[in-house]
Formats: sequence, C-alpha cells, structure tokens
Amino acid sequence: MSPPTRPLQQLWETLNQASKNLEAADFALLQEALTHTSSGLKPHHEQLEFLGDAVLRLTASEFIASAYPQMPVGERSSLRSQLVSDRWLAELGSTIEIERWWRIGPKASGDSTAAATIRAELSEALIGALYRINGLTAVQQWLTPHWQRSAEAVLSDPHRGNCKSALQEWSQGEGVGLPTYRSEEMSQRHGDLRRFRCRVTLPPRIKAEGWGRSRREAEQQAARAALNQLTGS
Amino acid sequence: MSPPTRPLQQLWETLNQASKNLEAADFALLQEALTHTSSGLKPHHEQLEFLGDAVLRLTASEFIASAYPQMPVGERSSLRSQLVSDRWLAELGSTIEIERWWRIGPKASGDSTAAATIRAELSEALIGALYRINGLTAVQQWLTPHWQRSAEAVLSDPHRGNCKSALQEWSQGEGVGLPTYRSEEMSQRHGDLRRFRCRVTLPPRIKAEGWGRSRREAEQQAARAALNQLTGS
Repeated sequence: MSPPTRPLQQLWETLNQASKNLEAADFALLQEALTHTSSGLKPHHEQLEFLGDAVLRLTASEFIASAYPQMPVGERSSLRSQLVSDRWLAELGSTIEIERWWRIGPKASGDSTAAATIRAELSEALIGALYRINGLTAVQQWLTPHWQRSAEAVLSDPHRGNCKSALQEWSQGEGVGLPTYRSEEMSQRHGDLRRFRCRVTLPPRIKAEGWGRSRREAEQQAARAALNQLTGS
Repeated sequence: MSPPTRPLQQLWETLNQASKNLEAADFALLQEALTHTSSGLKPHHEQLEFLGDAVLRLTASEFIASAYPQMPVGERSSLRSQLVSDRWLAELGSTIEIERWWRIGPKASGDSTAAATIRAELSEALIGALYRINGLTAVQQWLTPHWQRSAEAVLSDPHRGNCKSALQEWSQGEGVGLPTYRSEEMSQRHGDLRRFRCRVTLPPRIKAEGWGRSRREAEQQAARAALNQLTGS
C-alpha cells in the first residue's frame, strides 16, 4: 500500500470536517474503497461496498425520521428507496468528483455506462470506509446536505418517483385501459445500469422504453419516459 | 401510555444485560414496538419496524464481517439475506416468546399465518427500539448468539439456502430437463407469508409446492420441498 497521498487527504477534507487525525490505516481504507475490482488491484472495494450498503440504509432512515417526523411509513419507505438508489449514489460520486481518486480498469474507463455503475459502487464503498474510520455520525454529517437536496426534489415531483402508479392513474382517468410492460434482460452483469430494458405501450399513442439494473427500475424508467411523452404532447 | 410494567422489565432483561437504568421513555419505546397496528392502538410498531429493518441489516453485516472475515462478498450477501429474513425474524420472535408482551388485534390473534408475520414485524420493531434506547452495540450483543446458531445452520446446509440452484444442478446432472415453476398470487396482503404459492414440477416424478411473501421465496420453498422429496426417496 502506498503512503497517504495528497489527493486522498483532499478527499478526506471534502468528506469530513472532523478533527480526528487520520492514521495510515484510515488512508488505507479510503484507498481500498476507491480501488475498483476492474483494476485487478487488491484489496478492492467490494467488502466496503457491502458494508456501505447497510450503513447508507440506516443513516438514510435516520435522516428521514429526523427531517420528516410526521411522514407516514409508506412514504418514508418510498423516499428511502430513492435516497439509497444506485442513481443517487452515482450522482453523489459525480458531485464529489470521485473519478479524480478512483483506480479502475482500462476497459471500464472507456465506457460511460460502466462509469456510472462504478461511481455508484465506489461511493457506497466510501460510505463503508467512512463508517469504519469515524462511525455513523460522520456518515450522517457528510450525507445530510446531499439528502436534503434530493429529498426536496423527490417530494416536489408530482409522481413522487412512482411513475408506474402515476401512468396507471392517468390511463384509468382517460379510460384507455392499462399500460403493458415488456421487459427483457439485456446483460447478465449484476449491477449493470442497462441490464434490463422495458418497453411500455398504451394504445393508441404511448410507446416508450426505459433501462435499469432491475426489471422494476426499467419499468419505472419506461413509465417516466411515457409520462414525459404525455407532458410533451 | 401506561406506566412501565413488570413484563416489559423482564423483556428488557432478556434482551439486554446493559447496566443502563431504563427510563419511562425507554419503556414507552418498547411498548410502541410491541403494539401492532392491528390492535388499533397508537403509537404502533410501524416506524420502529422501518428503522429496525436498517439496523438489522447493518448489524448483520458487521456480524458476518467479524465472524467470517475470509468469506467472499457473494457468500456474505447470501448469508446476510438469511440472517435478516422474515423467517429469521419470526423465529427470533418465537425464541423470545414475543407473544407474551405483544398487543395485537382480535382478528390477527386467531390466525397462525398472521401470527408468524406479526412475530417478524414486531421483532424488527423491537430491534429498532433497542437501537434507539441503547445504540448499535446493544443490538449487536443481543443478536449475535442468535446469528451464530443460524449462520452455522445455514453454512452446514449443502444447498446454502439456494434450493432452486441445487434442484437445477441435480436435474441437469440427471439429464431430466429443467424444473418448471408456476407461481400464483393467493393474497393481496403485503407481508403475508402465504401471499404467493408456487408449484414446481420436474417429470416424471417431482411435484411439490411452496409458499412465501414473494414469488422468489415461494419458488425457493417449492424447490426445497422438491429436494426433500428427492432425499426421502
């Protein structure tokens, strides 16, 4: 493991204003989080990503409980799923310019879809590393401003991110029957943001498609595209 | 809210050996966790269940990292899914005899399927309450012995809980084609342990069924029943 480098020190300052003096072991954890499996280097991000996933879920739950104490559980659950989504994590990665610090393989570097997935994976690993270094509170402090922005955006969206329900409500209101979703698995790679393609049709005029890591996500994206067609028309 | 009662004090001692003196607010949290929505009383368990779900996932991840530091991430993920499952939570509820303390509705009391679901839901809420009262470490201490037993059982199971894969491997080895799964949604109630029924067939002799909260769980249970037929024959 190379010695603590200046870029990682900068990242640390970006992540956390804590006065804790970072030790070599802490830099090693950050380095581990930022080393993608595709680089062929070890130790790589996987174990910290696995931990980060659970840390993210708990700290997001705490954020919602504290920011929206009156929110019913069904809405909390729907909001949380968006505040821990791969989409959200990929955006976080963009915001902190994670690509300035990451170590990824040459194949992954040339592919923008792969880059979004890697951004999400390494951001999650970084959450795991920060938790290991400085505990839940540090993660909470780091992520809260990001969640505040995202939660406001989600809650001001009339569909609340549930585009399938919104499309169904619209179609029932119009009396044009129900939309039909057809999904296809386009890649076998777990975590691929373009693993599933979904096509939604609603005769006579709606025909749209969406992509996602899961069938469900692809359906939501297809419904979102359909709703955009409606708004545009 | 009624004053702290002796049964709750006993529960507290069962859960936690910590020397912390419980305050009225802590008893109120335990009471909230043990009050099921079906009782019609408020505050009920829902918000603590939502929190407990995330606490459970994080503490289970920590347990696995510490008990099985060499385990690859794929296996960690599969083991974790079993250590946080509704089935596991319902067993935990049985072990601590949660029905001695819970408050549930009269309809729910008469139905054994509903009872398993409620056991799981309230156990998860109890995890949320314990976390609020005494933090992550207390939850970890409480659950670790339960996880140790479950993890040993899972890891000594030759199918590692993935019965669908095991059945498929067997059928391919025998050259008898692939098993066919047919699932049906039998109830609309979210969380119902008998929401989906799945029938698996593998001519000429295998025919079995399973139930679950999700299509996936029902399929796994059907595959498990099929494997049991094979072992029995």
